[in-house]
Amino acid sequence: MVKEMKVNYELIKKEKNTQARKGILHTNYGDYATPMFMPVGTLANVKTLTKEELKNVGSGVILSNTYHLWLRPGVDVIKKAKGLHSFMNYNGPILTDSGGFQVFSLAKKKDIVEEGVTFKSHLDGSKLFLTPELSIEIQNKLDSDIAMSFDECPPYPVSKEYMKNSVERTLRWAKRGKKVHQNENQALFGIVQGGEFEDLRKYSALKTVEIGFDGYAIGGTSVGEPKDVMYKMIDDAIINLPKDKARYLMGVGEPIDIIEGVIRGVDMFDCVLPTRLARHGNAFTKYGKINLRNAKYKEDFTPLDECDCYTCQNYTKAYLRHLIVCNEALGGRLLSIHNIRFLIKITEDLRKAIEEDKVLEYKDNFLKNYKK
Amino acid sequence: MVKEMKVNYELIKKEKNTQARKGILHTNYGDYATPMFMPVGTLANVKTLTKEELKNVGSGVILSNTYHLWLRPGVDVIKKAKGLHSFMNYNGPILTDSGGFQVFSLAKKKDIVEEGVTFKSHLDGSKLFLTPELSIEIQNKLDSDIAMSFDECPPYPVSKEYMKNSVERTLRWAKRGKKVHQNENQALFGIVQGGEFEDLRKYSALKTVEIGFDGYAIGGTSVGEPKDVMYKMIDDAIINLPKDKARYLMGVGEPIDIIEGVIRGVDMFDCVLPTRLARHGNAFTKYGKINLRNAKYKEDFTPLDECDCYTCQNYTKAYLRHLIVCNEALGGRLLSIHNIRFLIKITEDLRKAIEEDKVLEYKDNFLKNYKK
Repeated sequence: MVKEMKVNYELIKKEKNTQARKGILHTNYGDYATPMFMPVGTLANVKTLTKEELKNVGSGVILSNTYHLWLRPGVDVIKKAKGLHSFMNYNGPILTDSGGFQVFSLAKKKDIVEEGVTFKSHLDGSKLFLTPELSIEIQNKLDSDIAMSFDECPPYPVSKEYMKNSVERTLRWAKRGKKVHQNENQALFGIVQGGEFEDLRKYSALKTVEIGFDGYAIGGTSVGEPKDVMYKMIDDAIINLPKDKARYLMGVGEPIDIIEGVIRGVDMFDCVLPTRLARHGNAFTKYGKINLRNAKYKEDFTPLDECDCYTCQNYTKAYLRHLIVCNEALGGRLLSIHNIRFLIKITEDLRKAIEEDKVLEYKDNFLKNYKK
Repeated sequence: MVKEMKVNYELIKKEKNTQARKGILHTNYGDYATPMFMPVGTLANVKTLTKEELKNVGSGVILSNTYHLWLRPGVDVIKKAKGLHSFMNYNGPILTDSGGFQVFSLAKKKDIVEEGVTFKSHLDGSKLFLTPELSIEIQNKLDSDIAMSFDECPPYPVSKEYMKNSVERTLRWAKRGKKVHQNENQALFGIVQGGEFEDLRKYSALKTVEIGFDGYAIGGTSVGEPKDVMYKMIDDAIINLPKDKARYLMGVGEPIDIIEGVIRGVDMFDCVLPTRLARHGNAFTKYGKINLRNAKYKEDFTPLDECDCYTCQNYTKAYLRHLIVCNEALGGRLLSIHNIRFLIKITEDLRKAIEEDKVLEYKDNFLKNYKK
């Protein structure tokens, strides 16, 4: 298809009692309501699922990953296929992560210099060099709808001095990336870093906004920090972000964290959690996560949850447990459908709660049942 | 659902030039045309696929397995679920293998006595004892639509003396199984053995028919014998089987063997081949099997084959190759859909060829393209 615009965000309503807001993400593949949960399709597929299944669970934007696609199948293959949408035959908006997080989380040895990062491939140990320019160039070629700036994502904790230098470097990298960004119909999001340091979060946010992006992500969360620290990171970032751009909390997918993020004004979330949990036989339910391997489900002929997904409408815990215990791939597939639907349903319920100014009530009700 | 009858076979038309025949298998879940290929769902699922996907590829009867379900989840679980259809939520006919083949192929140590077979579980090495009566009792509880007699399936080759004794024992086992068979709405099929010995095949067929079953399987093929020996085994069995009962060639799924089987008068086939090939990145095409790992498919943006399946209608070889190379489960799933569809399409084409008395023409055309 011919793309005609960049993804852009429209604010529809702010909730009365919190920073929660309802909005619309306008894309070349349709308009999608926010807050939204974005399933992760690292290697050009959301593990085990087809596009039809993603649509059926209410998925809008999906993620894919610059670093992983750069290695396999390689950018040239995808460019020859006329971009990632065509390669995957996916007729919906795609956001590509910049590869920054993967370099910092997957590579065993890395050497960060001003120019970029030298590191070893997690596949074969071969030496790779990724720069802000190369990350953007790859994303331009992938032709995703939303590209992400290449940033450094330090672990938790690091010294304030390290974080200060890292924030400055990430800002320089953001400028360099923006400079070479050439895909006119691809939005480019900046990433706010700064760790748990309030002044650095503020500085990173203001300076990133100064550079000017189509949306803003909050990075450096879910890297080992306590929950209250993460929530404060979100507060410290968002207060310094413009109201007319989308805000994306990277790598967050625990139900309670999605709710707390929305309360703080986050519009977009992504996480591998629902599919990863599924592969290991775990499912979200309104009462908390359950592990289907548990013997108590052996003769439990009820669905996972009160849920409208294909899995809950068709199969019992006993059957799902049987598939999981026997390592049958259909088990992980059926649990993936349910787990993704579970998180998307939370964002749907939150959107309704925003309309009715009842977000805190929704949170209380959710937590009444949900045991961590 | 309430079952009202046993599966039964209706002969519609015999082809002029061969023994090929078109028929209908009447079941409690609808009527299905034969010759048919039956996908294998060993552990109460056809690996990676849902019932909707099986329906979409034109699947009729599916298989499941007494031995495997006996071990996991256990017969009592399935009985409590009100049978296998309800446990799997599968609204179509199911044939259960007797466990005989699995005992003889999976168990490392086994001790065959008149009463039954003592062997060790392939899962945990625990000692198990399976008898003709127990196999039928399990299948009664599973409530499959077609149960199979418990037989001995000797390897190839064995001495004629061994085979003679084995055939006699299998006949005694068949009688004992039939005696305890109690599920009035479940068909029971006998199995013809006898290896490559023409007189033993004849003897086994006639004596099995004398006991009297709702259909007849040809066992002891695909156990290492050359193709021409297998084809002769089919001939020697079928000539001694009644025309008004279904004939099922067990464990056969190579395209050419399905064609040769149909030519010899076979109505039903099953094989794990399409799903097993898929898991290893292989696909059937009209030009023969291909391995998607081959580098030549890296930038091949055409479908696997001229085919009406979901996979061929939606994805390219380059994308499928990428999924397979990255060990993404979606790859095996998409190839399973195609491979099963490929074999079912062959049986559809053969049914059409039978109507037109052009089975040999079909075979010649197929072999013109298909390289082994």
